[in-house]
Amino acid sequence: MNISLAQLSAFGREVFRQAGVSQADAATATDALLAADSWGIHTHGLKNLSGYVKRLKAGGINPLGQAWVAAEGAAWARVDGDASLGMIGSTFAMRQAIRKAEASGIGFAGLRNSCHFGAAGCYATLAADEGMIGIAMCNDTPTVAVPGALGPVLGSNPIAYAIPAGEQSVLLDIATSTVAGGKVFTAAALGESIPEGWLVDELGLPTTDPSAFPAKATLTPMAAHKGYGLALLIEILSGVLTGAALAGGILSYAYDDPSKPTNHGAAFVAIQIEAMMERAEFEKRMQSLIDEIKNAPKAAGVQQILIPGEREQKYKAKALEDGVKLPSDVWAKLVEVSASTGVDLPMN
Amino acid sequence: MNISLAQLSAFGREVFRQAGVSQADAATATDALLAADSWGIHTHGLKNLSGYVKRLKAGGINPLGQAWVAAEGAAWARVDGDASLGMIGSTFAMRQAIRKAEASGIGFAGLRNSCHFGAAGCYATLAADEGMIGIAMCNDTPTVAVPGALGPVLGSNPIAYAIPAGEQSVLLDIATSTVAGGKVFTAAALGESIPEGWLVDELGLPTTDPSAFPAKATLTPMAAHKGYGLALLIEILSGVLTGAALAGGILSYAYDDPSKPTNHGAAFVAIQIEAMMERAEFEKRMQSLIDEIKNAPKAAGVQQILIPGEREQKYKAKALEDGVKLPSDVWAKLVEVSASTGVDLPMN
Repeated sequence: MNISLAQLSAFGREVFRQAGVSQADAATATDALLAADSWGIHTHGLKNLSGYVKRLKAGGINPLGQAWVAAEGAAWARVDGDASLGMIGSTFAMRQAIRKAEASGIGFAGLRNSCHFGAAGCYATLAADEGMIGIAMCNDTPTVAVPGALGPVLGSNPIAYAIPAGEQSVLLDIATSTVAGGKVFTAAALGESIPEGWLVDELGLPTTDPSAFPAKATLTPMAAHKGYGLALLIEILSGVLTGAALAGGILSYAYDDPSKPTNHGAAFVAIQIEAMMERAEFEKRMQSLIDEIKNAPKAAGVQQILIPGEREQKYKAKALEDGVKLPSDVWAKLVEVSASTGVDLPMN
Repeated sequence: MNISLAQLSAFGREVFRQAGVSQADAATATDALLAADSWGIHTHGLKNLSGYVKRLKAGGINPLGQAWVAAEGAAWARVDGDASLGMIGSTFAMRQAIRKAEASGIGFAGLRNSCHFGAAGCYATLAADEGMIGIAMCNDTPTVAVPGALGPVLGSNPIAYAIPAGEQSVLLDIATSTVAGGKVFTAAALGESIPEGWLVDELGLPTTDPSAFPAKATLTPMAAHKGYGLALLIEILSGVLTGAALAGGILSYAYDDPSKPTNHGAAFVAIQIEAMMERAEFEKRMQSLIDEIKNAPKAAGVQQILIPGEREQKYKAKALEDGVKLPSDVWAKLVEVSASTGVDLPMN
């Protein structure tokens, strides 16, 4: 059954409202989650409503929290999320980065005292929607091993960027682990095995059993020391420089005491293209690069080479037209949150 | 035979002087190359002198080129390298980024009309030496396939960062390919085979023969679509936004007509830590994170978990004390450049 984005949005907003979030913040948070669902990234969309609601009700997320600028300069801001929803503090912080970039060409905003923020790509896209280059990243509770370690040391510390390019944006949203934890949870929920290389078990050996994660298995960093190094940069920009919790000091929004703030950190960069180059020239150069990539000779059996974000934007165009068919594990979570909040399930 | 850094520096400077480079620029360029050698990254150090000299003599690199600021704002600068050595334009551009970060908290500098710049980590380190976070990246002539493509589409587009952390810096310098092309060349020069996964051949199949690269084999992107996406971001920041050549439009500094400028692009970011956080607090937080990582439980047989840059900084400390033992392929290149320039080889 396909459900329209409008129906899903109304459901999300009402769930947040029931949990004590203001109308404006409920809309902001729902928009961020629904962006992920509209791209087909259901691991980071409305599926997580139930986890957020649990923390909102227990007090670990403050439903009335108001993100605020703790310090700022010409091209930077340090934002305190006030233990509000990660989507609220992150949207606020990226808007600060955009404001700084409007004034100075580039803007950096760090965020402390936040929570799990959903998909990093949602915030990068806020900048692209303003004609800017947007970059978003965050730290998270450890689920990823580093080379030489036995067990989790750093979070899956994702990074996303979005860049305007004529009719569509280039969009990349990746975990610095080999895969995001959400993909492992989805495989476990669907009873599927996972490829070797995604997880190592308690002895540091590869395992294909997703149900072992996270208690008895650990994600691997992408490209070994390279993913480790990038995850560390993200930890430093999101955590060390912002005043947020670091690595093992960050609570899991899903597993740890829901009455305590998780104190996630995040970092956002906006770059104002027009300060540095005529917009038309930039777009022409982007198109030339995209054309060169798409026209490259293809491997056997390959129909087309995809630009990052191309699949997501096709999915979104279809979602706007036809609505979204939610995977069964996501639907099960919506049923659960509907039951716990009394908000009617979204219908076609 | 170990050779002191002072001897190697004198050799590098004299080679550049013989090729028409000013005394100041010869020192700057040599410093950048020697930084890589001092870290044990000999693929990006003095080994490449012969290639640079060839282009300096043929006119593709302008020995008297003067990098200049083509446009700037509160927190950004667009630098034109004037077809000078990549090390000259890149050092100049990172200094612009640092200057902007001093004023505004963060600084971005784009560089066009440059050439192969050696190791990205050298420029990131310039910022760390000023107590800032430094990030450096560049585009390059295509040597890396993207998912679905048969053959090279993007360069190995490296990214490096350096972050002050008390006595030492955290330093990461990686290609966004599975490995850097320099490692393949080194294996070929030493007659060694390479692991599967580094290269694909003309049919898109894995090959372990390094001599096939680059004419008949192509590097793979690290972590598949993730490395592709990061390489594309680097291409856009270094190339699209700066006005440099893009992808296939960039000449190879080693293989293409040495009389023509390569028009490489690069991008540099500096973040002023002290604007955002007391330096002592930042360093304390860095130390806490480093301690947590190093104290994590270790896999069987692992003595210690390394922080990115730790190996390089140990190598450098030893190099300062005992000098450097250059690999045979590097020494062979120095012999070649000594013969072609008449500059005496460095001695112990």
